[in-house]
Amino acid sequence: MDAATNFPEIEHLQAHFAEGLALECGRSLGEFSLAYRTYGALNAAKSNAVLICHALTGDQYVAEQQPVTGKQGWWENLVGPGLPIDTNRFFVICSNVLGGCMGSTGPRSVRPDGRVWGTDFPPITMRDMVRAQAMLAGRFGIDRLFAVVGGSMGGMQVLEWAASFPQKVFAAVPIAAAAYHSAQNIAFNEVSRQAIFADPEFCAGRYWAEGKVPARGLAVARMMAHITYLSEEALTRKFGRKTRAAGDTQAASFFGEIFEVESYLRHQGSSFVRRFDANSYLTVTRAMDWFDLAAEHGGDLSAAFAGTKTRFCLVSFTSDWLFPTAQSRAIARALNRAGANVSFVEIESDKGHDAFLLDEPDFHRTLRGFLAGCAEHAGLK
Amino acid sequence: MDAATNFPEIEHLQAHFAEGLALECGRSLGEFSLAYRTYGALNAAKSNAVLICHALTGDQYVAEQQPVTGKQGWWENLVGPGLPIDTNRFFVICSNVLGGCMGSTGPRSVRPDGRVWGTDFPPITMRDMVRAQAMLAGRFGIDRLFAVVGGSMGGMQVLEWAASFPQKVFAAVPIAAAAYHSAQNIAFNEVSRQAIFADPEFCAGRYWAEGKVPARGLAVARMMAHITYLSEEALTRKFGRKTRAAGDTQAASFFGEIFEVESYLRHQGSSFVRRFDANSYLTVTRAMDWFDLAAEHGGDLSAAFAGTKTRFCLVSFTSDWLFPTAQSRAIARALNRAGANVSFVEIESDKGHDAFLLDEPDFHRTLRGFLAGCAEHAGLK
Repeated sequence: MDAATNFPEIEHLQAHFAEGLALECGRSLGEFSLAYRTYGALNAAKSNAVLICHALTGDQYVAEQQPVTGKQGWWENLVGPGLPIDTNRFFVICSNVLGGCMGSTGPRSVRPDGRVWGTDFPPITMRDMVRAQAMLAGRFGIDRLFAVVGGSMGGMQVLEWAASFPQKVFAAVPIAAAAYHSAQNIAFNEVSRQAIFADPEFCAGRYWAEGKVPARGLAVARMMAHITYLSEEALTRKFGRKTRAAGDTQAASFFGEIFEVESYLRHQGSSFVRRFDANSYLTVTRAMDWFDLAAEHGGDLSAAFAGTKTRFCLVSFTSDWLFPTAQSRAIARALNRAGANVSFVEIESDKGHDAFLLDEPDFHRTLRGFLAGCAEHAGLK
Repeated sequence: MDAATNFPEIEHLQAHFAEGLALECGRSLGEFSLAYRTYGALNAAKSNAVLICHALTGDQYVAEQQPVTGKQGWWENLVGPGLPIDTNRFFVICSNVLGGCMGSTGPRSVRPDGRVWGTDFPPITMRDMVRAQAMLAGRFGIDRLFAVVGGSMGGMQVLEWAASFPQKVFAAVPIAAAAYHSAQNIAFNEVSRQAIFADPEFCAGRYWAEGKVPARGLAVARMMAHITYLSEEALTRKFGRKTRAAGDTQAASFFGEIFEVESYLRHQGSSFVRRFDANSYLTVTRAMDWFDLAAEHGGDLSAAFAGTKTRFCLVSFTSDWLFPTAQSRAIARALNRAGANVSFVEIESDKGHDAFLLDEPDFHRTLRGFLAGCAEHAGLK
């Protein structure tokens, strides 16, 4: 892939923070930007804001066309007028995470000295991402978010928000989330990273300077990760053992045929490369791997939520094997031990981890009902 | 990695077949060899032979030191004097599969014209592998094997043996097996293959001619596959979130630390490259993916076993998510529909697919008991 065709430069709406941020790793960003989008209107009391936290490869384009891919927003089925996260009622904010590559400061940003950060970009943690988001909320004059909502890595951020800023979060909705990354998930992330490192066009992270892109390594990383987002049932239903013509691709074909699931994964890999930066992938997967909320609180997850007034709604999906129900249940137990107000719903679905992005009526009903109840309790009109 | 350090040339015991083999793909091997090992002694009636079929990356060194790695045989806990597959009683044969790289004819073999086969090696199927093994059994003058035993891809071969040569198999033991490769398993294999294709040292499959080895791609493939061999519980118990010093490896370290599971996977990847050939990996994974025993029999798995007299013992493991119990259960049902003599045991284990290689007392007891019962029935002394 030609570097020029990778990652067209697009203007993203940004908030700039000249005051910088002291990071958990001990280093500092002297200044930084967060790219963000908003939907709906902030009320006069500034009490109707819903912060949405995106997953590993998500971005701020929640409910509108994504400018790089041209696809619809990743939660357009959930966020909008009359939808469960109702933009007629709520002011929705979503920012690209710190370390990301859709306009927020990250490895592909230019440093003050004019060079691209690349692998010199400091390691970022879930807490760093959340502290940057808190500064963004401050820009809007918002003292307390009505709700913080997110799935997968977004759910990790929701948990970090509730633990770091309990007084700033009225309601928290961690979906298909976990309070720490498991050994299996670290293992999958590590294979992704090694696939990127193995690509000679990675150039020790300085591919931008060389006019190259580690497209093949990044595509392999994405292909593998994509399998973990789907359930075995979903793959069987979607593809089974159906075949198609191999074309002229490098393939383990038989009589010129390959399996449709192979073709699908390759498409996932190659299209991903056009919208994601390899160094950001390394930075953000590391942030997930090092996330361990209990460890931040002396090994006791309930201590992370001691005295919390936040109302929690945990959601998991039966066929999700990447962030399985057991992980959400462990969070629910810790919240119960902390005396928190918590509801926990396991949604029946055969779609795997991806279910949180899909039209799952029970999930959408749950979210709508929980937010409506909280709004009443918060005295929101 | 230097090509010269990869894959030292070692003399393997071989049987040569000058008569060649017409392959399922329509092409023929004019001649071929199988590398094999035997343990124990064939009785005068030639009725005590147990054929062991190895898994994707296994080989013929079942119960003795592997000459390339120096490690002990891969089933040394199961095959030997007094062990469940008792070499005081049985004559055990195991051959490296056709298409493999431990001495049998495969992509790294030299063609009659003096060039290495490489990617020109024809596609091989499970049935081709089994037909070659049947020719090897014929060399020993064995009309009927007392038992055919194998796990994972070895179990696929056992099923193919029972379907293709019912009169030649007294007892069949498919362990952690499946009658077809699932969409999820095809997907994982495809990521492995794309990791190999992505390595520029693959040189379109002609790396031997170039003095190169696609070591990084093959290592990534192995790392990913290795995750699928273990259960989430086993990874958690073995590694959890334990960390160690990063050293000077390319890593997503934090304060110079990486996770132990990362270090472990890298070791698995790099050591694999020293014993396995990338083109063989492509050939053998393709054979697994295209295996579909029901499709070979008009879509009805029970038709594959119509009228069989073979005694079957199916074994699965509770935490195996690569070849889950449901796959073995489907085979048991088909055998029941065919009126076959079948027992099916699901072994409680938290070790994942790998359990078939490990010291699992219930599994070993099951196998010992089944073989003893069959031996009695067969009138074996």
